[in-house]
This record gives sequence, structure tokens and C-alpha cells, in this order.
Amino acid sequence: MVNVGDLLAGIPDASGGELFETLSASGGVRVERIITQGQATAAGEWYDQAWHEWVLLVKGEALLMIEGELEPHRLLPGQWMLLPAHCRHRVEWTLPGQNTIWLALHWPEHNRNEEGGR
Amino acid sequence: MVNVGDLLAGIPDASGGELFETLSASGGVRVERIITQGQATAAGEWYDQAWHEWVLLVKGEALLMIEGELEPHRLLPGQWMLLPAHCRHRVEWTLPGQNTIWLALHWPEHNRNEEGGR
Repeated sequence: MVNVGDLLAGIPDASGGELFETLSASGGVRVERIITQGQATAAGEWYDQAWHEWVLLVKGEALLMIEGELEPHRLLPGQWMLLPAHCRHRVEWTLPGQNTIWLALHWPEHNRNEEGGR
Repeated sequence: MVNVGDLLAGIPDASGGELFETLSASGGVRVERIITQGQATAAGEWYDQAWHEWVLLVKGEALLMIEGELEPHRLLPGQWMLLPAHCRHRVEWTLPGQNTIWLALHWPEHNRNEEGGR
């Protein structure tokens, strides 16, 4: 039995706060949908994660800042970033009044195998 | 320096055959864009992979068959499937005459850590 779903269906109301939902979790990799509606990382705070994250902006718009860079990255639908473990980053801004949908993949910094197949 | 890109930009012409492009590869996880234009898996062939795959249909339309199921899954934009290692599957059909864009994640069946973070 395979696990199936729709990233664009069943979108909850995120006006009260960012929403995180795990879609799949298997073999150390977690696939997550994030819904944002105008929220940003709290002032002065940075995400500093012990694992790798690959993030895709699916819908909406956001500004994502990497520590040490001069300007945030403007993310539009289809744009993605690989955030290596301990790459300090923050969400500066997301589109107010409508949903921004993110797909985020999280996986450990060190895996037993260094390469995926195919 | 972070790795950034656009899933919807720089789309090559896939009329001559399916195109596979690795976007990111880190810590055992490989993120791939696949462009299909009417192609399907060869008759009687199945993918039988030793690794897990999570696939998202980004644009276009496809029919994906899982061995042992009666009907293929119709995938529209936003729909995803987790294909565990050794889950035999085939692409029955993709939209002819225009691009179908897939995002595929590949990772080993067994990782050292069983859970991604956050």
C-alpha cells in the first residue's frame, strides 16, 4: 500500500500561526508541508538545525535570509533552496492575507550511504 | 553558500525522451527533476528500486501504476506518492505534447538515524 496525498488540497487556515504537517516519514527522511500566512521568524531568531533541509516554495511568496548574506532570497513558486545542517536562516517575510505553501524535506546530516540510487 | 534553483525554469525539450536532472545531492538524499512529454515506462517493464522514492507531480498529468493494484493512480499537480523500496511501479501514461514536471526524492532504505529532525 503506497502513501499518497495532495499538497494543494485540505489547506488549513494559517492566519493564526504557521502550520507544519508531516506528509511522509521513512528511513530518516521527513517530508513536510508548511502553510504560512504572513508570518515570519521572530525578530533576532535564526533556525540553526542539526539536519539538512531542502525547501520548495509551492505557492505564494517569501523572503528567506541566510546569515552572513547581504540580501534575503526572494522565493516564488517553483524556487527551492538546499539549507545544509547548521546553515543559519530565517524567514524574513511571507505574503500577508493569503497562504504561502512550502514543501520541506528534512534528513540527517550523516547517512550510512552517501548516495541515493538510480 | 546555499544551493538554490527554480523547478519551473530552464525546462529542456523532452520530446525526444524523458529527462532526469539532479538538483541537490547531500547526505544520501538525491533531489531530482524529471521532465516527461508523453513518455511511459516500456511495456511490461517495472521500476523495482532498492531505495525509497517520494514523487510529486508539479505540472502536467500522469498515470502511475503500482503492481498488484487494479487501477493506476491519476496524478495531477500537487499530488504525491511515497514509493517504498521495492514497490514495483510503472508510469502508464503522461500527457502528450506538453511537459509533465516531476519532483522526485530518492534515499536509501536504511539510514543510520530513523527520524529527521524538528
